[in-house]
Amino acid sequence: MKPIFKRAVIAGVGLIGGSLAIAGKKAGIFETVVGLGRTKATLNRALALGIADEISSDMEQALKGADFFFIATPVESIISLCIKAVPFMEKGCVVTDGGSVKGKIVRELDAALPSYIKFVGGHPVAGTEKSGPDSAFATLYENRYTILTPTETTDPTALNRVTKMWEAVGSKTVTMSPDEHDEALAVISHLPHLAAYALVETLGKTDRNGEIKKFVAGGFKDITRIAASHPEMWRDIFEMNKGEVLRSVTNFEASMAGFKKDIENDDFGSLLKKLENAKNLRLAIENQ
Amino acid sequence: MKPIFKRAVIAGVGLIGGSLAIAGKKAGIFETVVGLGRTKATLNRALALGIADEISSDMEQALKGADFFFIATPVESIISLCIKAVPFMEKGCVVTDGGSVKGKIVRELDAALPSYIKFVGGHPVAGTEKSGPDSAFATLYENRYTILTPTETTDPTALNRVTKMWEAVGSKTVTMSPDEHDEALAVISHLPHLAAYALVETLGKTDRNGEIKKFVAGGFKDITRIAASHPEMWRDIFEMNKGEVLRSVTNFEASMAGFKKDIENDDFGSLLKKLENAKNLRLAIENQ
Repeated sequence: MKPIFKRAVIAGVGLIGGSLAIAGKKAGIFETVVGLGRTKATLNRALALGIADEISSDMEQALKGADFFFIATPVESIISLCIKAVPFMEKGCVVTDGGSVKGKIVRELDAALPSYIKFVGGHPVAGTEKSGPDSAFATLYENRYTILTPTETTDPTALNRVTKMWEAVGSKTVTMSPDEHDEALAVISHLPHLAAYALVETLGKTDRNGEIKKFVAGGFKDITRIAASHPEMWRDIFEMNKGEVLRSVTNFEASMAGFKKDIENDDFGSLLKKLENAKNLRLAIENQ
Repeated sequence: MKPIFKRAVIAGVGLIGGSLAIAGKKAGIFETVVGLGRTKATLNRALALGIADEISSDMEQALKGADFFFIATPVESIISLCIKAVPFMEKGCVVTDGGSVKGKIVRELDAALPSYIKFVGGHPVAGTEKSGPDSAFATLYENRYTILTPTETTDPTALNRVTKMWEAVGSKTVTMSPDEHDEALAVISHLPHLAAYALVETLGKTDRNGEIKKFVAGGFKDITRIAASHPEMWRDIFEMNKGEVLRSVTNFEASMAGFKKDIENDDFGSLLKKLENAKNLRLAIENQ
């Protein structure tokens, strides 16, 4: 494939940034990948793994001549890192991010960035519970969706190039408003994580002598696997998407309360109807 | 291995019963396996797959000469099926079940069965979301726990033989009271299923135009996979374990409310502490 970007700077060469680097180089869409980060050991590891062609802890050096900047750092540092990079970015540089919350990021960057920097809010909906350069792999984005959240200030050419980039690494793309994104992610990702943490906390409350956890079945492990992911990262997501997370929690609480009421009232016909509806929706998702 | 039982009658030759039949025959602990059921097509399939050596829809015929009876039917029919079988069971026949609720089953069968029938309540904590003879496989119980729930009326020799039988097919065994079992299963299985159904219902409420479900990520699929299992089966489990399920839902609601309050109050330090505790408990489960 013809290169889409000549000098691609990737801040954060872990699972998200590292996988884009590997897949993008494989697809031939980046001429040079520059790994930007603060931790020397991580950068050296990314270089050793072939994720980056160059590494740097210096923004000015990394961004010199760059036509693409992907910010794949933890979600709460994306805004500040991008604003700090403004003085070092070339005119016309295309900037996108991998943050799993979009409203706050897109609003603040749209307001703060000069018009010659072409920012496109993005979120590749993919991941594992692992992190760091060693967790990166070329096929992470294959057949996953990347949600792009253009606004009226987004440059159409930049949007087009970022779209092509994600599609080149195997991702499907979809556009929606930052707020629609945050509502959707609250319900498909943020709420389920919170529920998984709550299920584990509930087990902890019940398992006073530590016996129950011995024979935990596969179902519990599957449903709570995501509760083994980074607490700090999730705290930040819940903080940045506070409004939508609270709304989805309220909707979820209403569902649980509806189930509970049916059980309390021995209205198992009503409960069955709800379970059947949920099963059908779940099957529709699986067959999507 | 020396046979533990000569004529093993298995009511319900699907995932649970069929897998015990296959694994038990492989281990040499059953001389003859008799598949008992109402649906001819299912029985014929079990025969064709080699799950059963004989099949029958007639209790009297099946149980004649049987020294072992495993009731692996849906949980709500275990009690009635067992009581209906009493006139046809040989003296000393060892009876156990695979029901995922124990209190109600063990109480009612302990009261109803004559003392010459040796009933041991049991629950192999294993399964997949599939069912039917074709879903059965020899290694289903390997490294899983089977919980046995003896009471003061349980015959120690029968308990010993049932224990040996489960261990012969690769299962670890643990004993506890029926009520302890139901409390444990409520929190590790019944509550998570209810939460999975509620998460899917919440998605349905939010996804008014059906767009969101398109890009559902792996995390949501993992956590809600169990919501694709049988609604009728789960309705019955929630009904039979009503008390413990409601208690676990109440505990879970308190956990969710605690998280929600932290988010509402911007007390992300408190939230982080809760997430970290849950993560640590989850890792302890994984490393068990």
